[in-house]
Amino acid sequence: LDYQHVQVPFEITLWIMLASLAKIGFHLYSKLPSVVPESCLLIFVGLIMGGIIYGLNDKSPPVMDSDIFFLYLLPPIVLDAGYFMPSRPFFENIGTILLYAVVGTIWNVFGIGFSLYGICQVRAFHLQDVSLLHNLLFGSLIAAVDPVAVLAVFEEIHVNEKLHILVFGESLLNDAVTVVLYKLFRSFCEMPAIKTVDVFAGVGKFFVVGIGGVLVGLTFGMTAAFTTRFTKDIRVIEPLFVFLYSYLSYLTAEMFHLSGIVAIIACAMGMKRYVEANISLKSHTTVKYFMKMWSSVSDTLIFIFLGVSTIGENHEWNWPYICFTLIFCLIWRALGVLVLTFFVNRFHVNTVTSKDQFIIAYGGLRGAICFSLVFLLPDFHRKKLFIAATTVVILFTVFVQGMTIRPLVDLLHVKRKRESAPTVGEQIHIRFLDHLLAGIEDISGHWGQYYWKDKLEYLNSKYLQKILLREYDQPKSSIVLLYEKLERKHAIELAEAGQLGHAPSHPSLLCSGFLCSNSDRTVITDKKSEDTLNPDVLENIQEILARNLYRIRRTGPAYSRHRLPGETEPTEQAKEILILQRRSL
Amino acid sequence: LDYQHVQVPFEITLWIMLASLAKIGFHLYSKLPSVVPESCLLIFVGLIMGGIIYGLNDKSPPVMDSDIFFLYLLPPIVLDAGYFMPSRPFFENIGTILLYAVVGTIWNVFGIGFSLYGICQVRAFHLQDVSLLHNLLFGSLIAAVDPVAVLAVFEEIHVNEKLHILVFGESLLNDAVTVVLYKLFRSFCEMPAIKTVDVFAGVGKFFVVGIGGVLVGLTFGMTAAFTTRFTKDIRVIEPLFVFLYSYLSYLTAEMFHLSGIVAIIACAMGMKRYVEANISLKSHTTVKYFMKMWSSVSDTLIFIFLGVSTIGENHEWNWPYICFTLIFCLIWRALGVLVLTFFVNRFHVNTVTSKDQFIIAYGGLRGAICFSLVFLLPDFHRKKLFIAATTVVILFTVFVQGMTIRPLVDLLHVKRKRESAPTVGEQIHIRFLDHLLAGIEDISGHWGQYYWKDKLEYLNSKYLQKILLREYDQPKSSIVLLYEKLERKHAIELAEAGQLGHAPSHPSLLCSGFLCSNSDRTVITDKKSEDTLNPDVLENIQEILARNLYRIRRTGPAYSRHRLPGETEPTEQAKEILILQRRSL
Repeated sequence: LDYQHVQVPFEITLWIMLASLAKIGFHLYSKLPSVVPESCLLIFVGLIMGGIIYGLNDKSPPVMDSDIFFLYLLPPIVLDAGYFMPSRPFFENIGTILLYAVVGTIWNVFGIGFSLYGICQVRAFHLQDVSLLHNLLFGSLIAAVDPVAVLAVFEEIHVNEKLHILVFGESLLNDAVTVVLYKLFRSFCEMPAIKTVDVFAGVGKFFVVGIGGVLVGLTFGMTAAFTTRFTKDIRVIEPLFVFLYSYLSYLTAEMFHLSGIVAIIACAMGMKRYVEANISLKSHTTVKYFMKMWSSVSDTLIFIFLGVSTIGENHEWNWPYICFTLIFCLIWRALGVLVLTFFVNRFHVNTVTSKDQFIIAYGGLRGAICFSLVFLLPDFHRKKLFIAATTVVILFTVFVQGMTIRPLVDLLHVKRKRESAPTVGEQIHIRFLDHLLAGIEDISGHWGQYYWKDKLEYLNSKYLQKILLREYDQPKSSIVLLYEKLERKHAIELAEAGQLGHAPSHPSLLCSGFLCSNSDRTVITDKKSEDTLNPDVLENIQEILARNLYRIRRTGPAYSRHRLPGETEPTEQAKEILILQRRSL
Repeated sequence: LDYQHVQVPFEITLWIMLASLAKIGFHLYSKLPSVVPESCLLIFVGLIMGGIIYGLNDKSPPVMDSDIFFLYLLPPIVLDAGYFMPSRPFFENIGTILLYAVVGTIWNVFGIGFSLYGICQVRAFHLQDVSLLHNLLFGSLIAAVDPVAVLAVFEEIHVNEKLHILVFGESLLNDAVTVVLYKLFRSFCEMPAIKTVDVFAGVGKFFVVGIGGVLVGLTFGMTAAFTTRFTKDIRVIEPLFVFLYSYLSYLTAEMFHLSGIVAIIACAMGMKRYVEANISLKSHTTVKYFMKMWSSVSDTLIFIFLGVSTIGENHEWNWPYICFTLIFCLIWRALGVLVLTFFVNRFHVNTVTSKDQFIIAYGGLRGAICFSLVFLLPDFHRKKLFIAATTVVILFTVFVQGMTIRPLVDLLHVKRKRESAPTVGEQIHIRFLDHLLAGIEDISGHWGQYYWKDKLEYLNSKYLQKILLREYDQPKSSIVLLYEKLERKHAIELAEAGQLGHAPSHPSLLCSGFLCSNSDRTVITDKKSEDTLNPDVLENIQEILARNLYRIRRTGPAYSRHRLPGETEPTEQAKEILILQRRSL
């Protein structure tokens, strides 16, 4: 027997196997997962496993290695989250999300840190040796909402899209803040004296870490998209690039002390549309399926390890500190959400309701990131107390909050996710409104989300698509294109009519200008209806259409606003106006 | 910059990225891969990379770690090979393959070992210090044909299925022999004296290593199939089990010093049909695609590492030893193939032609397995000589033989693989002949391949399918079922006719008994042709069909031979014969 030789892969495979079998086991009894979230069950399995290991070896079971967690278990989950991120609600609420993620997390860190320091001053609790900096350091690791825990719970309760993205987006983007604050306080702890310049450097780091992460992610994402341009002959390794580049973006960001989570999300969201267009359908199925599979396994392993690591002799128990940590976590989060939402609601028409606020505050689950960070702390005499407090907060949030959030959502009648996909009609209208709002923002000179979206779309179609897509083509199925085409045809008709000196016969105009091109695309009307219309109705329709189309042409620049205003020649416009006027007379 | 922290995954990702980009690069120039096999190009890239590393660091680049090769790079390739193994040609030629793999490899090992020992006796070559045992040890590692190299070359030249499976099957199954002989000679080298009992124990080990590998593989394969019965509610982790269980089978076999390659092939071949039936179509696409992707990456990495590892100061150059190693490798393989094929052809109708023999001998490529084994050798003063000789043999076979085999195949007009899939008609006939031959073997008391295949099929349908398949059902799309159904219908018609006391009208019989049920399934005839036939032809057809169907019924037990002969009641049979006789009169 040569166990040494195969130990590492063998044990990894066995752990994954245990995780997968546990998952199957839960689903065999269909009642269980509907009451208890899977994450709780998995932690429970981990606790049992840890107990068994502890009982057999009579020493603490191995704790989850922070390196393994950050380098191997976390990236697949974040990649999956980023790749399948609903980009529309995310960007619509990006302001609110950033506010919660940045200001909210800072608020929590300092709130928890200072109030715990206050508790430490009470003589009866025997905690006077925990300094303010240590409390702030602890606050920085315990304050961050965990994306893995949030995802595990919120995927099961199906709240409405906006609420989901607010909690989930916050949990993802607060990583940048956590990284900065955690590293800042850790280095402060080791410094003999803190200068003012260090504090300012820390504030500057926020932007570097966050924006740097986005830039690293986008760079790798664009490279990935560019690479898949050339995989036509070897379809078999296409899916690989999606994984390789996003992992590289994560590792590179981590290497430069930037936010890896932000980088991988930027990478995934950036490359998705180009990669999807370049790779084959089967490759894409593999990418999607494998991503889901991998993140699901990582997720399972994290919760099991969380359970296993809880057992053992890493804890120092101090009732007041642990209880107050839990209480402060809940209070400061609730307060933070209330205050921030108050400001958010003042600037938004579509407000966050009080029910939503409650769920956002209540859904602030802590998870494996806190746990890994607390183990990464430099050794000092109260580290075990921090570990104990972190463990209690995680178990409380995952078990108590995780299990009660579903009944609460039911009880409060929180708006649920809509079951059906939007219809084509809805999509067209949403799109139409987007363009309309972009135009309004442009006219009013307001640089809102529609303005930026439109700018991005321009950048995309003008440069990125040409570089990144294998078969560069105008984006198909766009109503803008359809309108432009119709409008161009009609203009030609009019021009011809002007040259010929007489108005075109109505049926021919109607047919060749509008209905035919529509029936080619089978969009709105079919050609047969034309035969049954009487001339009066026809005339009426044509007039409406003609006026309509002319107006489209006039508002045309709003759709392709990136041409200079001078590009549509005034003489042509004038000619058309003349023709139209002559016709209407 | 914190490179230390991310070094391991970062470098792994970069190597994989390099491999994938190299692959893309070759395919951009479509002419290159059609002349030079990809394996050669990849080794070439590796050589350049190695040269760069050597030039920059001024020390030997890292050689491919044997542990990494055997634990992480080899399994995906073998799994892919096993999972997509064409089982029919494999089992049809299993005898020949085993003869080549076992006897052929032993022949090569001893042939090369003893003749190199002869060379070592020549004083002028300064090789007297290489003992017979060391030569045999070297022979045992250099003799084995490499599945990765064979696959890389033979997948591109498209020779006929039988020739392909003979070379490829041999390269896979000789692993058991290589493992035993290599470990045997290595332990002999370390022993002070070799007893006779050790030699006999070595012979016994062949069977343990080979059959043990098969048993380990089948156990895990069946467990995998059983596990996928319960994944209906969590489709997302289905593909995982295919990979987990096959990897576990490999690791377990390696742990017990059995043949991991044999185990993983047995596992993959064993589980395939059950897993396929249990998991969803998308899961299966993911399994297939990911397996191909993974093996393709492993394969690429192996060849690149092979190139990188060649550069450096690991070599001791001795012209005679290296040249004679190469010559003996070629000669003994050619002789072995000739002699073994002579015996094979005496016992087979479908002989191995002399062209095929040439390609089998010429296709005996050596690859990364030899390379890893030679680095695993215990340190002794001539190890570097062995490394040099192995490198030369690998490079010669991959470059010279690998590049010339395609022109040779063209030149010799070796039978190619048929381009199209077999038609339904062919499949039906192949199946029919299988059953016929199974019956003949059964009657003649010969335990040939058809006999065993039939027994396995029985075991499968009687026990395995019921345990391993989620929705156990009679196998669909079987012609046996179709025949049985037709026959049952016809029998009912006849029975009704017998009860009614008059023969059924011809058209009705024709329609309801044979043609209708056929046209329902759109197998052979279409119903319209019935209308245009004149009565004489109809009568003729019907008579043929009736006689035919009766004969099918009589030979029925040959298709489900596992019922006792008494199960078809003689009275019913007699009744039918009476009816038929009355009709034909």
